[in-house]
Amino acid sequence: MKNIKFNTNLVLVTLRPRTNKMLYNDSIVALATPSGAGAIAIIRISGEAAISIGNAVFQSIKGKDLTQQKSHTIHLGHIVDHQKTLDQVLVSIFKGSHSYTGENTVEISCHGSTYIQQQIIQLLLRNGCRMANPGEFTLRAFLNGKLDLSQAEAVADLISSDNEASHQIAMKQMRGSFSNEIAKLRKELLNFASLIELELDFAEEDVEFADRTQFHELLNRIEFVLKRLIDSFAVGNVIKNGIPVAIVGEPNVGKSTLLNALLNEERAIVSHIAGTTRDTIEDELVIGGIGFRFIDTAGIRETEDHVENIGIRKTFEKIAQAEVVLYLSPPAPEGGIEVATLKKEIAQIKNQFPLKTVLIIFNKMDLMKEAQISNLKSQISNSIFISAKNKTGIDQLKAQLLSFVNKGALRNNETIVTNTRHYDSLLKALEEIQKVQFGLQANIPSDLMAIDIKQALYHFGMITGEVTNDELLGNIFENFCIGK
Amino acid sequence: MKNIKFNTNLVLVTLRPRTNKMLYNDSIVALATPSGAGAIAIIRISGEAAISIGNAVFQSIKGKDLTQQKSHTIHLGHIVDHQKTLDQVLVSIFKGSHSYTGENTVEISCHGSTYIQQQIIQLLLRNGCRMANPGEFTLRAFLNGKLDLSQAEAVADLISSDNEASHQIAMKQMRGSFSNEIAKLRKELLNFASLIELELDFAEEDVEFADRTQFHELLNRIEFVLKRLIDSFAVGNVIKNGIPVAIVGEPNVGKSTLLNALLNEERAIVSHIAGTTRDTIEDELVIGGIGFRFIDTAGIRETEDHVENIGIRKTFEKIAQAEVVLYLSPPAPEGGIEVATLKKEIAQIKNQFPLKTVLIIFNKMDLMKEAQISNLKSQISNSIFISAKNKTGIDQLKAQLLSFVNKGALRNNETIVTNTRHYDSLLKALEEIQKVQFGLQANIPSDLMAIDIKQALYHFGMITGEVTNDELLGNIFENFCIGK
Repeated sequence: MKNIKFNTNLVLVTLRPRTNKMLYNDSIVALATPSGAGAIAIIRISGEAAISIGNAVFQSIKGKDLTQQKSHTIHLGHIVDHQKTLDQVLVSIFKGSHSYTGENTVEISCHGSTYIQQQIIQLLLRNGCRMANPGEFTLRAFLNGKLDLSQAEAVADLISSDNEASHQIAMKQMRGSFSNEIAKLRKELLNFASLIELELDFAEEDVEFADRTQFHELLNRIEFVLKRLIDSFAVGNVIKNGIPVAIVGEPNVGKSTLLNALLNEERAIVSHIAGTTRDTIEDELVIGGIGFRFIDTAGIRETEDHVENIGIRKTFEKIAQAEVVLYLSPPAPEGGIEVATLKKEIAQIKNQFPLKTVLIIFNKMDLMKEAQISNLKSQISNSIFISAKNKTGIDQLKAQLLSFVNKGALRNNETIVTNTRHYDSLLKALEEIQKVQFGLQANIPSDLMAIDIKQALYHFGMITGEVTNDELLGNIFENFCIGK
Repeated sequence: MKNIKFNTNLVLVTLRPRTNKMLYNDSIVALATPSGAGAIAIIRISGEAAISIGNAVFQSIKGKDLTQQKSHTIHLGHIVDHQKTLDQVLVSIFKGSHSYTGENTVEISCHGSTYIQQQIIQLLLRNGCRMANPGEFTLRAFLNGKLDLSQAEAVADLISSDNEASHQIAMKQMRGSFSNEIAKLRKELLNFASLIELELDFAEEDVEFADRTQFHELLNRIEFVLKRLIDSFAVGNVIKNGIPVAIVGEPNVGKSTLLNALLNEERAIVSHIAGTTRDTIEDELVIGGIGFRFIDTAGIRETEDHVENIGIRKTFEKIAQAEVVLYLSPPAPEGGIEVATLKKEIAQIKNQFPLKTVLIIFNKMDLMKEAQISNLKSQISNSIFISAKNKTGIDQLKAQLLSFVNKGALRNNETIVTNTRHYDSLLKALEEIQKVQFGLQANIPSDLMAIDIKQALYHFGMITGEVTNDELLGNIFENFCIGK
């Protein structure tokens, strides 16, 4: 049995690199609260010497020595620079493995003037701290085993989440649901891998420790889970970044009015965002806890150019960026709408973008007769009737938009992958698993199969951080805010 | 003796109004850290029920009941809204009189996304908190006797202070140095007042409990201190708001270059501030811990109008707003400067503004000969030679600017009054003290003198808050930030 365990460990391709140890012998300091003035600000120190450094600049009201205090206690006193009192503060002490970082940690709660924040941080720098790099507190939490890598990444997602759906996904990931799912698969695979390694040790005896039928079942199960996780990325990605929606239609068809009707209803979280493309303006809107990005190509609103080709090209550029297309039909005068023309245009869009969801919206329903509406409904499926001006039908439209995301993984409380890095590792793991499956069917030698299994394990490990390297960690944590 | 004490209390014109009790039976909540996203945010709850409300939305990792925990302890867990976990948080508990407000207080340290902040605050509102008004935490600290009024006001000053001088003054005031000085005078005056009141009780016997010579001495001492405090306001006010400096001189004389030379040296805390007057732009600069505001009247820089009258009027408008005037002399070509003209212009300024400090600055000293400089120095006292372009002489200019403030109260570590309300009360108290002095000399009846003494005590009490009313408190605390 001991041999088996030994082999198991061999399968771990690389362990957490020990070189990182060097990085975190010192004590780091940073402002943990948003920059700017407020009632209070928190300055955070982490490291072996954090408490003694904190103690060196602190005069307790009751004459306490911070180094002698229990973890998770708070102490009132002053931050003193030689004779000069910088501020009256509360100091919180967290000891060793009980802190966020897993190191001694001190949090100084000071008055929230930027002057005081700067002065205290500078004093701490003079007393042996160095400025923390972005995300370095969380990096240390990871290196000290307080979080795995996907949990650490969820911390950044959590801080940047601005709606219920992205918040819940980040929260779940931070609490370890994704990690657990991966770890469980990895453990089962590791177990089989160790048995296969054992077979290699006894190669000349031609024994099979690893039950091939069970192994086949396991591989199928892993493949199934991986595929589900990979599929979830489509929805995860749009939830994280907001679902892109294009409102298309001829000029003056009521696009702006519709957008305003949607936006006005949800005053709380509305913003204009200058998009990545110079020409693109996006309005962000949260409906039922899901973020939607309404894409508008700047050129379209102003254009007076009715030449069909240019109009269609511009519209198509817009649609290409969207997941959902709201096709706003031209106004419906008494004479009725040219249904044939409309159908032709929709067909053109569907032809070009077969996977996009297209909703046909008849605006200005207040100007339409009941019979006309019934007639259009019967002729054109998947159509919605609204009056953007009177704000009728807007709720129905929102419900329809929500229906595109709510049905899947989100509602079923399944794990959703939102991180491109994870998605990439999952794809690679799946590829390796499929190689193993193929190898198993083709009855290839155990030693060759072992290589593919190791590769799959490697990609699993990349997600949770059992396998890392400095470059990867650098890339992940440089996108964190300072102080986290 | 008991009688005397009883009388002493009578002299207190109004006590802290009991009606305010009503205001703070409930529990208030607010974000205490600056708004926006950051690593962490602090949400603060204060009130009788704060801990039980905190406990209702908190699931401790270790299954702790927050209401059973000691003061000044920190607990890890989750904020949970029914089944939904909003965040993993640290909760700090402060009990009753040991907290900032003097009430039960809970601080929730959550992840700093604005979404999480909003969600947690909304959850707390649903659980019995109400949103705190601006400054309401500090108002409660005052009403609960944790701070006096001038200390409470210092909290707001401390948060808005952006340089060493204003920070140190606010810090001193918050720690009670001003309050103590006022309280000491008030106590001595109160003591005498009680003796005088006692005399009134024994009016028919014509006794003198209060030693008139000692009383005279006390009044002189009080007058001396009041005058010093009142005088300190001039420096206190400019330190708090920044010392206004006007750079004047003809167009193209190098004003912008000088300003840039001053600003460039101090990259750290430089800002463009749109002033209160629409035409005024101010550049703020901290030199040696003191804030300076460089006033520039927008119209002047651009004006091409060399008609003397208009030029002088504009310059005078600018000087009127300043404490210090930097008079930038016209360039000194080979031919030398018209000293007579220069002196005439300076005399004109001094005549109009006899109390302003005027510094004469010769720019472009790199173009001047040694002999020319010596000659000018001998003819024009209080002059400085610089080259704004080459940044020579700038340090000397800064030292000169600093010398206007450093010499007085600031250096001697005396109490400096920065608050207009305090200044106003001190002026009124002085007026009453002088009436008492006059009455003492004129030997007016004790009962008349007692009225003036009561008035003086009233104005002392207004400063520290022994005497207040709702309107006054409303005015003071409405200028605080929310969460403080």
